[in-house]
Amino acid sequence: MTTTLITGGTVVNATGTGQADILIDGETIAAVLAPGSTLLGHDLASSVDTVVDAAGKYVIPGGIDAHTHMQMPFGGTEASDTFETGTRAAAIGGTTSIVDFIVQYPDQNVLDQYHAWHEKAAGNCAIDYGFHQILSDVQDSSLTAMDELVAEGVTSFKLFMAYKGVFLSDDGQILRAFQRGAENGAVMMMHAENGAMIDVLVKQALDAGHTSPYWHGMTRPWQAEEEATHRAIMIADLTGAPLYVVHVSAKQAVDQIAAARDRGMNVFGETCPQYLYLSLEEQLGASSDEWGDFEGAKWVCSTPLRSRAEGHQHHMWQSLRTNDIQMVSTDHCPFCMKGQKDLGLGDFSKIPNGIGSVEHRVDLMYQGVVTGKISLPRWVELISTTPARMFGLYGRKGVIQPGADGDVVVYDPNGHTSIGVNKTHHMNMDYSAWEGFEIDGHVDTVISRGRVIVDDGGYRGRAGDGQFLKRGLSQYLI
Amino acid sequence: MTTTLITGGTVVNATGTGQADILIDGETIAAVLAPGSTLLGHDLASSVDTVVDAAGKYVIPGGIDAHTHMQMPFGGTEASDTFETGTRAAAIGGTTSIVDFIVQYPDQNVLDQYHAWHEKAAGNCAIDYGFHQILSDVQDSSLTAMDELVAEGVTSFKLFMAYKGVFLSDDGQILRAFQRGAENGAVMMMHAENGAMIDVLVKQALDAGHTSPYWHGMTRPWQAEEEATHRAIMIADLTGAPLYVVHVSAKQAVDQIAAARDRGMNVFGETCPQYLYLSLEEQLGASSDEWGDFEGAKWVCSTPLRSRAEGHQHHMWQSLRTNDIQMVSTDHCPFCMKGQKDLGLGDFSKIPNGIGSVEHRVDLMYQGVVTGKISLPRWVELISTTPARMFGLYGRKGVIQPGADGDVVVYDPNGHTSIGVNKTHHMNMDYSAWEGFEIDGHVDTVISRGRVIVDDGGYRGRAGDGQFLKRGLSQYLI
Amino acid sequence: MTTTLITGGTVVNATGTGQADILIDGETIAAVLAPGSTLLGHDLASSVDTVVDAAGKYVIPGGIDAHTHMQMPFGGTEASDTFETGTRAAAIGGTTSIVDFIVQYPDQNVLDQYHAWHEKAAGNCAIDYGFHQILSDVQDSSLTAMDELVAEGVTSFKLFMAYKGVFLSDDGQILRAFQRGAENGAVMMMHAENGAMIDVLVKQALDAGHTSPYWHGMTRPWQAEEEATHRAIMIADLTGAPLYVVHVSAKQAVDQIAAARDRGMNVFGETCPQYLYLSLEEQLGASSDEWGDFEGAKWVCSTPLRSRAEGHQHHMWQSLRTNDIQMVSTDHCPFCMKGQKDLGLGDFSKIPNGIGSVEHRVDLMYQGVVTGKISLPRWVELISTTPARMFGLYGRKGVIQPGADGDVVVYDPNGHTSIGVNKTHHMNMDYSAWEGFEIDGHVDTVISRGRVIVDDGGYRGRAGDGQFLKRGLSQYLI
Amino acid sequence: MTTTLITGGTVVNATGTGQADILIDGETIAAVLAPGSTLLGHDLASSVDTVVDAAGKYVIPGGIDAHTHMQMPFGGTEASDTFETGTRAAAIGGTTSIVDFIVQYPDQNVLDQYHAWHEKAAGNCAIDYGFHQILSDVQDSSLTAMDELVAEGVTSFKLFMAYKGVFLSDDGQILRAFQRGAENGAVMMMHAENGAMIDVLVKQALDAGHTSPYWHGMTRPWQAEEEATHRAIMIADLTGAPLYVVHVSAKQAVDQIAAARDRGMNVFGETCPQYLYLSLEEQLGASSDEWGDFEGAKWVCSTPLRSRAEGHQHHMWQSLRTNDIQMVSTDHCPFCMKGQKDLGLGDFSKIPNGIGSVEHRVDLMYQGVVTGKISLPRWVELISTTPARMFGLYGRKGVIQPGADGDVVVYDPNGHTSIGVNKTHHMNMDYSAWEGFEIDGHVDTVISRGRVIVDDGGYRGRAGDGQFLKRGLSQYLI
Repeated sequence: MTTTLITGGTVVNATGTGQADILIDGETIAAVLAPGSTLLGHDLASSVDTVVDAAGKYVIPGGIDAHTHMQMPFGGTEASDTFETGTRAAAIGGTTSIVDFIVQYPDQNVLDQYHAWHEKAAGNCAIDYGFHQILSDVQDSSLTAMDELVAEGVTSFKLFMAYKGVFLSDDGQILRAFQRGAENGAVMMMHAENGAMIDVLVKQALDAGHTSPYWHGMTRPWQAEEEATHRAIMIADLTGAPLYVVHVSAKQAVDQIAAARDRGMNVFGETCPQYLYLSLEEQLGASSDEWGDFEGAKWVCSTPLRSRAEGHQHHMWQSLRTNDIQMVSTDHCPFCMKGQKDLGLGDFSKIPNGIGSVEHRVDLMYQGVVTGKISLPRWVELISTTPARMFGLYGRKGVIQPGADGDVVVYDPNGHTSIGVNKTHHMNMDYSAWEGFEIDGHVDTVISRGRVIVDDGGYRGRAGDGQFLKRGLSQYLI
Repeated sequence: MTTTLITGGTVVNATGTGQADILIDGETIAAVLAPGSTLLGHDLASSVDTVVDAAGKYVIPGGIDAHTHMQMPFGGTEASDTFETGTRAAAIGGTTSIVDFIVQYPDQNVLDQYHAWHEKAAGNCAIDYGFHQILSDVQDSSLTAMDELVAEGVTSFKLFMAYKGVFLSDDGQILRAFQRGAENGAVMMMHAENGAMIDVLVKQALDAGHTSPYWHGMTRPWQAEEEATHRAIMIADLTGAPLYVVHVSAKQAVDQIAAARDRGMNVFGETCPQYLYLSLEEQLGASSDEWGDFEGAKWVCSTPLRSRAEGHQHHMWQSLRTNDIQMVSTDHCPFCMKGQKDLGLGDFSKIPNGIGSVEHRVDLMYQGVVTGKISLPRWVELISTTPARMFGLYGRKGVIQPGADGDVVVYDPNGHTSIGVNKTHHMNMDYSAWEGFEIDGHVDTVISRGRVIVDDGGYRGRAGDGQFLKRGLSQYLI
Repeated sequence: MTTTLITGGTVVNATGTGQADILIDGETIAAVLAPGSTLLGHDLASSVDTVVDAAGKYVIPGGIDAHTHMQMPFGGTEASDTFETGTRAAAIGGTTSIVDFIVQYPDQNVLDQYHAWHEKAAGNCAIDYGFHQILSDVQDSSLTAMDELVAEGVTSFKLFMAYKGVFLSDDGQILRAFQRGAENGAVMMMHAENGAMIDVLVKQALDAGHTSPYWHGMTRPWQAEEEATHRAIMIADLTGAPLYVVHVSAKQAVDQIAAARDRGMNVFGETCPQYLYLSLEEQLGASSDEWGDFEGAKWVCSTPLRSRAEGHQHHMWQSLRTNDIQMVSTDHCPFCMKGQKDLGLGDFSKIPNGIGSVEHRVDLMYQGVVTGKISLPRWVELISTTPARMFGLYGRKGVIQPGADGDVVVYDPNGHTSIGVNKTHHMNMDYSAWEGFEIDGHVDTVISRGRVIVDDGGYRGRAGDGQFLKRGLSQYLI
Repeated sequence: MTTTLITGGTVVNATGTGQADILIDGETIAAVLAPGSTLLGHDLASSVDTVVDAAGKYVIPGGIDAHTHMQMPFGGTEASDTFETGTRAAAIGGTTSIVDFIVQYPDQNVLDQYHAWHEKAAGNCAIDYGFHQILSDVQDSSLTAMDELVAEGVTSFKLFMAYKGVFLSDDGQILRAFQRGAENGAVMMMHAENGAMIDVLVKQALDAGHTSPYWHGMTRPWQAEEEATHRAIMIADLTGAPLYVVHVSAKQAVDQIAAARDRGMNVFGETCPQYLYLSLEEQLGASSDEWGDFEGAKWVCSTPLRSRAEGHQHHMWQSLRTNDIQMVSTDHCPFCMKGQKDLGLGDFSKIPNGIGSVEHRVDLMYQGVVTGKISLPRWVELISTTPARMFGLYGRKGVIQPGADGDVVVYDPNGHTSIGVNKTHHMNMDYSAWEGFEIDGHVDTVISRGRVIVDDGGYRGRAGDGQFLKRGLSQYLI
């Protein structure tokens, strides 16, 4: 077993900072030490295999992206990042764990899908990975499968209030699944958009000749998100299940979550970098020589980008400060423009929904520290500690403490990162939703279970390094 | 310098738990280590002076009580605990830091008082102590003193909306002090009760012949607290100052704080064990052979105990879970029944206001874990980590990490503590407000800056162990 | 044409009271006069055919019950009151107009149903009647029919969020109907209960052997009503349609309506006497020699009776004062215990849903005046003036002013009314949901379009007196 | 006694409209009749002294301005309109009743002031007038005077939370006055601004050299109004007194009132035309050759004009629709620029506070109908019916019904009114706050207790026509 000592850095955790060295022994953190590399006279630096100099840098627990869709079959195609390419990009960006989604489409058997996803991921991942299970039609067998999956370490289940015939569960199905979650302790995740409303609006838009990507956002108004968020909260209220609303983008949805929490409910929300930085207005204005106004397809995702004039982005940042939104994932669901997004040329409703950000989340959220929107500890809490607690990984992940996995990132606040397809881009996409973003800060070194997998900006790991994460129940419930 | 190794315990911090040993070298934590007492082959246990066996126990950062009034002159008498007796009782109860209040009465000079309080405390304290500064009449010199005190490490200022002629600041004075706080970064603390309303109600009650202690609570209705809380929030809104409302007891006041926070304001609230456990109804029913219905004087404090029928206690516990209230202090302000509380025989308004709890806060809050009201990490957050962050002590206090002061408590969840004047009581009071409380749990060992000051239930320290804490600005602001 | 002078009464309208005589000439109010029966020296009393002495009594515009279901086919049977029996009972109780519901079940043609309902009602009614149109499956032809019906004076459309396969519209259908309403000005009415949730709960209860009527209420929790109310509000927000929520019974649903109104939306709520007076607890305790615990079936209606312990009834009265709920209808939908309600013996879900109150609404609401819950003008506003304004009848109905239809009720505050099947009961039901209620007050005289149809407690009219009311658009929108 | 018949008009009341003739016999309305001037064959038109042709026009109850300050001593001068000039201007503008304020300054005796005000008004008024009583220092004798004044028909009392040394009552004084109001049924009115905060801000602004009128608004921020509004509500909550907040201008204050009402409290709000139409931004930009930037002094009033960018004006209009604000008065308190406002040249705090609008309220509010912001019945409700109900005048004033005073205005919607000092202006001011406003609509005829006092745009009445209005208790309480 190899030993590593990270010296001279500023360790950042969710409540504050401290100067400390980190000793990793094998795959596990062995000690957090006062700086100096000696302990009671014992010289540690000379005892270890590797010394990583973190002077002037932040040492943080590895990022956890709790919402990714690697090689997900969707919209007649498949998300363009495989578990291999996607997790490698994640690693390069400072993320050392993902929780990906097993898909169950209607009439499929949940456990069959669970096993199928294991096959897809096993041996291919650069970093550790866990699974959430998507439920669509909530068969009787799905309910018993929920218990089995909890025992297997899949302790969270996602349902959809949109995508009829593909993902949609009706309210009765949702109710039954939530009842089971209330019993077995799983967190119930919700894609909260009113699909029935959206389907009518989409059809009306297309009938009226509105076919460009911009209309994707126009046909998914905030009312559809706020409504579904509130509905999910009521089902949670009735059943007692913990609720986690994914990719919250509308400020009114945040307000629903905040109100539920003020009443003492276990209701949580996740947002994504795109809802903090990007807007419907930019999508509206998007045009290029190559794509014309279809350029906007690059940012077609659901929930959609929201209007900046309506103040959603500002409100979302605020909600990160006030803990009305608890964590930031990416909803990484990449599609190339050529051969994938272009399925929707002439019909925005056929554009595969998704944006790829798994590589940039740690950097993008660090910009919130730079601009004073969030504090340094809050950055770590949002990208690592709360994801770990929320999804039953804390202790092993999400914190720098003895016994935890040696998942550590050395982040250089004086470094710089330019985002663009010809720059730092490692995701399997032919464009970047973040093209041209300049980041104050840089992921220097990434250590995953004790192995340095990224340094000097280079990837040193290999497919298969990552292991399946058998998760426990949520450690965040109030 | 002495070295201590705490082995085999479960370390609890604000975000979760872990199995780890703690090495203290001199006054400071040197390392947090994987259990086993060896590190890279180095045998640590045999290298240290003292080994504390914490197997089966919780190891937590020492408690921080951010609201005490040792030997405070008030109501024609003086709080019965001196810095010596009060801090010793605190230590025995697992609290290793207090932040006490310097009093400035009208026409007094703030800096004079600051120096006077240093004299009172210096050389007498069993544990470390910091100061908040009370401002009453907000002279021009008080504003400049605020800046000087921030530089001295007194980074929080308390004002009162009640106690006319004694503490009361009018809204213009409060506004000016808050403006200064917004500039110099200090936290503005508020005793939020509308004194003008209360003074009328008290006079009317006495005129009507209502003289017993019960009327103390009846003449300080929740409306007086809710109103003042809201008013303080508006002044904070106008000035941009951070606001910390002390001893919140009314659920409606909590709602005001929650609403302010949902808008993104730096508004915080503290509650105290008495508002979680005790009620106006119990005070009403209190009677004894010795005191008759004056027995109720034992629980005369301000804000007052609230009606259980109105649900304040339940709501207050909920607010601890939802973080609408951020921390728990004691407002320790002890008076003996004989010679002090009895000043109010025949006139409840002359009863010195205060309850003594500094010794029991850690235990009383642990009962919330036992009864499932709060989680284990939340316990630590409420009694230590957030107090440290709120008042600029984090890093040195409030967390177990290398470089932090060696303030550690070993808490035995299988131990038991009986509260009563003839039992665990060490406060200088002739009664206990908590008489008869039985606690599941026990403070086993208390270490203050590396010295074991309590073990086997016995006090091993001495007056003068404690040092003045020069605090920084709040590390909790959003 | 006959002329009638009502003398000496206290005329009550929605804003206050006054002493005045009312002259009705033919079918229409000709004048409202200072008391005394002379005008500029002209002796009016001797000029008229009939003088009604109203001294010491209230003279109010005839009641308008905007929610009745006469002979509605439902649940395998038909509501037991025909248009003839039901409107006669209404008349006796002081109601001179109803607005009944045309039913369109799935796959039926809306206009066909409209004509069918005209046939049912024509020539049979004791008092004037209008129609709302129920839409179930919202076909394309239904949307065009909406415009035609508005032109015909059917200016309000009701949809259901429950009763799958019978009434239920999905959210897309609701959205389309609301869009049309926003265009043509119709009021969109909503039965706001989440049917999908309820269907699961009902099945689970029955599977668990819970078959008694009490479980009707237990399987329709307030969350199902609050949720659907909020959802309807969001669809109204998106489309701009005015929304009128029928039979609101849960306090949380009231709060949703109040919040929408505070934001300036045209969102309104109706409640019914049963939600003000009766409770789930009473239904739970109901038992009789004849029916055993099936006695509770007498109060099976949807939305269900709510728990008194939860405070719904108190909150509902408050909402009448604060105008968060705007009016009171009956949702009159009577079924006999024998041969109808008893279809649900052994399976509460088969009990026809409904309570009959059309005869007692004016009396029951007057009790709110007697007990000080509402003012005298508010009584008139709730039972007559606002119903008229809400549904486009004002000017002709709902007010005592020249030009209005001569629909006038003389109400004796010193009279008394005992409710019971062997007492004042005229509805075609074999039981009364209000058995044993004793009313301080009495409907003395009822005049419909100038004809005295009730006096001395006796019915003087005949089937066919009532005419179809071609309604205009709502006059209540803000 | 003279008789008048108003024929052919559209009578507008608070709930709707109708075509009717109005017969006034002496000072009182004798009948409201179907159009046509005959009744049971009696020819009325030929029986009356005067026929007013209202064809194509609105016939409304005379306006009631419940907030005026005629010849009020204030700020070292006296409001420039006497009871004679002010009430004449009011009459010309369609207002037939005012409720003016008796001032009690500290140490003055309330009843002395009451009598003094009677002397000022008696014999001088063009229209009927009532009084509210201002209380400043709330002496014991003031409380007993409150009961006496209620018996005299002065059933409402106003207190101030600002203007220290002039009007200010402290919270204890307010509490005592409210307690008395809760007992004797009087409405407690509140000038809700936190004077202590404002006094500090004013001093700081002047110290910083900010002396221009614009700083009047800058030193009275919305927080000061919201805070005081909430404080008054809490005192009302504690005492049970009805509360009426005068001249509400901040949207946040509206929200406090709305929240109190949603809880079922008797809390009401009044706004004024200036808060609906004018803004701080316009005051900021105001400049003229004559006055330079002191031009802004024309709009110095308290509460101040609010920022349009913050959305107060929009919110205030909305609150009129939702009944979160119940009525519109003027707070008519006129001062001339020369010799009065100019006292504040070089020091905005010395500018007498006030705007004159008593002549234009009916017209200005009618513009809300023209622009679709409020309905025609709501116009009448806001300017006449609710003021009458709120302040115990209903039945005699505020409604067109037999027995009511013959106070009727014929308003021509096709007329036009140009506001300006050289145009319609009759107030005793050397400028108009409304200079240049063009009104669609015109006050044609004003009848006060049966006498035509305005027609053809000319004033036909005389000083002394108006009588003192002995008011009853509020008829608006919920």
